[in-house]
Amino acid sequence: MTPAVVLLSGGLDSAVTLAICKTEGFEPHALSFSYGQRHGIELRAAEAVAASMGVHDHRIAEIDLRVFGGSALTDVRIDVPQQRASTQSEIPTTYVPARNTIFLSYALAFAEVLGASDIYIGVNSVDYSGYPDCRPEFLKAFEQLALVATKAGVEGGRVGIRAPLLRLSKAEIVRRGTELGVDFALTHSCYAPDEDGAACGKCESCRLRLNGFDEAGVKDPARYQTL
Amino acid sequence: MTPAVVLLSGGLDSAVTLAICKTEGFEPHALSFSYGQRHGIELRAAEAVAASMGVHDHRIAEIDLRVFGGSALTDVRIDVPQQRASTQSEIPTTYVPARNTIFLSYALAFAEVLGASDIYIGVNSVDYSGYPDCRPEFLKAFEQLALVATKAGVEGGRVGIRAPLLRLSKAEIVRRGTELGVDFALTHSCYAPDEDGAACGKCESCRLRLNGFDEAGVKDPARYQTL
Repeated sequence: MTPAVVLLSGGLDSAVTLAICKTEGFEPHALSFSYGQRHGIELRAAEAVAASMGVHDHRIAEIDLRVFGGSALTDVRIDVPQQRASTQSEIPTTYVPARNTIFLSYALAFAEVLGASDIYIGVNSVDYSGYPDCRPEFLKAFEQLALVATKAGVEGGRVGIRAPLLRLSKAEIVRRGTELGVDFALTHSCYAPDEDGAACGKCESCRLRLNGFDEAGVKDPARYQTL
Repeated sequence: MTPAVVLLSGGLDSAVTLAICKTEGFEPHALSFSYGQRHGIELRAAEAVAASMGVHDHRIAEIDLRVFGGSALTDVRIDVPQQRASTQSEIPTTYVPARNTIFLSYALAFAEVLGASDIYIGVNSVDYSGYPDCRPEFLKAFEQLALVATKAGVEGGRVGIRAPLLRLSKAEIVRRGTELGVDFALTHSCYAPDEDGAACGKCESCRLRLNGFDEAGVKDPARYQTL
């Protein structure tokens, strides 16, 4: 089978992306990051998701984004916001500088070692209203970079960045995942879970998720503190 | 003073690049990587070089490239070659997959946190015969990516990748560093140093360095095992 790299965060979107990668005929090699998150719950979720979909190769790269600070997700001095940024054009404080550039760089290294030509990433249109490195023009620029950055590119090959959720709403992602049998109970989205890993139901990420399930008419099987 | 990010390896090239950054009027913020090298000597060299040039902000990001394997510099199962690849077009086994893509991604994150618009990297024409991610077209593609990857880019700014050694020979780099007062005794280039940090004088990197000093008519002050 043809190998592909799948960026797997443990969240809902990357779980659906992994399922799509499999239906598109690839053998997924999953890549997650331990990057100074406030909690390791999402890495355990990533492991559970990978195992549930029969992924045989799941690597966790330890990287250090705390060295720069600058985001609520890695810097303990910045509070995680409970509300979405007030306008769509405003970049939220949960933005990690150059995060997807760094993640795709690692994915490119992994693809090169595997001889893979495809990298799957679960960014979507809900994200790209706020994060510069979730937009289609960013993904296109990364593909251009990959053409000149690697042995494969020099030798006439290509590496494609596949973002199958790019133009889907959260509700459409939930529906697609449901069709493909994704076990959403294993996925984790909350920015501020309690000690047992139960989601807060209030942070931006929880609310996007709950709205998506609500619109899709599907019950979210994740554990919530307030439900 | 205007901040700039300088990638600092502890080698000769990045030391000269740091000196050039200073003469071009920037306040350098140095960035080094601990990435599963076989030896930490080059990081200690990077610290000594930064200190000798009065750098007040030097970050060392711990990253994990061993998770993928695939290069003699990070994978202990691959021997470091004593000879340069037989043809100029052949990519040497010391090539680390996507290394400069990963390094520049971190530099971009650092630049974004600092509000810096300039990233210095010490790649040069000797490198780019063998490594895809040292070529001018790679650096240009990374600049294009930075335009769409960051807050600054979205807001109309830019991040320039400055590679002042790009078209210089090793001898020209040695001469430029000598003019700028770089203390080459602090720099480390060897792929296979002994326990005391003395260079082997035989590996590809040592031979490029020694040839450069020789052509420049400058004595290399580094410690060698065989001299």
